[in-house]
Amino acid sequence: MDLPAYDDVRRAHARIAGHIHRTPILTSSFFDGLAGASLFFKCENFQKAGAFKARGAANAVFGLNEAQARAGVATHSSGNHAQALCYAAAKRGIAVTVVMPETALEAKKAAVRGYGGTVVECAPGMAAREAALARVVAETGAEVVHPYNDARVIAGQGTCAKEIIEDLGALDAIVAPIGGGGLISGCCLAASGLAPDIKVYAAEPSNADDACRSRKAGRLIVEDAPQTVADGLRASLKALTWHFVSTGVEDVLLAEEDEIVAAMRLIWERMKIVVEPSSAVALAAILANRPLFSGRRVGVILTGGNVDLHSLPWMAG
Amino acid sequence: MDLPAYDDVRRAHARIAGHIHRTPILTSSFFDGLAGASLFFKCENFQKAGAFKARGAANAVFGLNEAQARAGVATHSSGNHAQALCYAAAKRGIAVTVVMPETALEAKKAAVRGYGGTVVECAPGMAAREAALARVVAETGAEVVHPYNDARVIAGQGTCAKEIIEDLGALDAIVAPIGGGGLISGCCLAASGLAPDIKVYAAEPSNADDACRSRKAGRLIVEDAPQTVADGLRASLKALTWHFVSTGVEDVLLAEEDEIVAAMRLIWERMKIVVEPSSAVALAAILANRPLFSGRRVGVILTGGNVDLHSLPWMAG
Repeated sequence: MDLPAYDDVRRAHARIAGHIHRTPILTSSFFDGLAGASLFFKCENFQKAGAFKARGAANAVFGLNEAQARAGVATHSSGNHAQALCYAAAKRGIAVTVVMPETALEAKKAAVRGYGGTVVECAPGMAAREAALARVVAETGAEVVHPYNDARVIAGQGTCAKEIIEDLGALDAIVAPIGGGGLISGCCLAASGLAPDIKVYAAEPSNADDACRSRKAGRLIVEDAPQTVADGLRASLKALTWHFVSTGVEDVLLAEEDEIVAAMRLIWERMKIVVEPSSAVALAAILANRPLFSGRRVGVILTGGNVDLHSLPWMAG
Repeated sequence: MDLPAYDDVRRAHARIAGHIHRTPILTSSFFDGLAGASLFFKCENFQKAGAFKARGAANAVFGLNEAQARAGVATHSSGNHAQALCYAAAKRGIAVTVVMPETALEAKKAAVRGYGGTVVECAPGMAAREAALARVVAETGAEVVHPYNDARVIAGQGTCAKEIIEDLGALDAIVAPIGGGGLISGCCLAASGLAPDIKVYAAEPSNADDACRSRKAGRLIVEDAPQTVADGLRASLKALTWHFVSTGVEDVLLAEEDEIVAAMRLIWERMKIVVEPSSAVALAAILANRPLFSGRRVGVILTGGNVDLHSLPWMAG
């Protein structure tokens, strides 16, 4: 396995600094009171392309040599990683192909095309996606950038926690949502290099608790298409991210669906910002585990803000 | 007239630094492209009590001597100033009384009481408000803190533009909404002391254009209860703020109601933040006057985020 190290995070930060926002960190006495802790919200919902994923994608794209760049990049994703990779590719002026199931929302296909990317449609299901991506690579020679099981992507995501630690100094903990595990792996790397005493907690929907179950079992458990309102967190861990989750993460904390929606709504009402449901999982998990964080200084990563503003979950029904 | 000077802004900043947020400044390539300019959004919607008003209120409250503080503070306002004054008074631990028309929303009265303030109800109309406030002062000896026609408040609001200029250095212009004129007067003070070349533009709803008409007439024109979606901007200038508007402001730019709502919605959709309609007036005025700002570096103050999230203007009807 090509495991990234802290030095890769440092190099990633230098490489992508001109292409990403150093996002602000917000505090709220309301949430401090609610949690009984000092919470520092890192606002990746303000990041380029609307989510932290721009960090990893930019690190992969701007790390390519000239020959690689000429062949372009490709991925399969219908979520934030696709938009992030398109953003980074457009920034560098190289081709990007995104494999998406034909059932994906038209709006997501349009977003890729809006960045100048090419959409290749395939049948639903992971096997069909991977076959279609293999065909794209055979035809174009494009470099595949996986959403999270990629050392370049993990190192890029690590720049988020690096900024938190640089801005705030000593923290007791960092809490970030976990789906495929790229962000949390980056958090482990940043903490290991800058402040090894910081405990890294992963926050996971109870409805998609593969990371939690994997840790309990001591082996990687893959979940097939779990259903959760935090739709950005449905992916399962893979080899690289399982390494960090099994060795660098203090614990995986769970949040129920109603707790996630309530946290998302509270963030909107009290912090005046729009976050996607996945972003709210970290706060929901903190509030569900108050004693763990009582009196502590805690960094909380709000991962993204790409949500359909016209069907917010508490407006449904 | 007790006109504040730049030194008062400097002193205000030192006085209130521990009680307010140094709010972040966000940029957006989407809005830069739309405006054909480099826009820097100062996010006072993240300020304590949800709006820039916390600056002026905190400066007034923390500038009181011990004897004054014991008698408490009072104001008449049903908007952000009331909440800001209650926030500051609670921070210092002193009494605060807010005169509100009996027709004010229960939610606004509850907000004052939530901060430990006392609500005194009066009949609607400015005469009744002022009479009720006079009675409060006669009974309690409270110090009246006017929402904007107050040198302490103007100096406090000036800390917002001071932070912008400190963070960004040379700018071509600052654009801020104008209602009673406290914020824009503070902008004039900060620019005069730190960067006199910066042009200060006031942005005003066409439906409440008393500042624009006052400048054209060369004398202070007071408007009675104008109707605009930007309900924080219905107040008219008074002597202190008219001084700055007539001498320090480059121009007053107008925005139509539909432009204000469209700008508010765009800020929500593209910047992922919730702002109140008054906040959107500055952006709306910039977009309605693109040639003026073409290629310029422009600070834009998003004044507050206190809005009923369940009846956003584009959801109406």
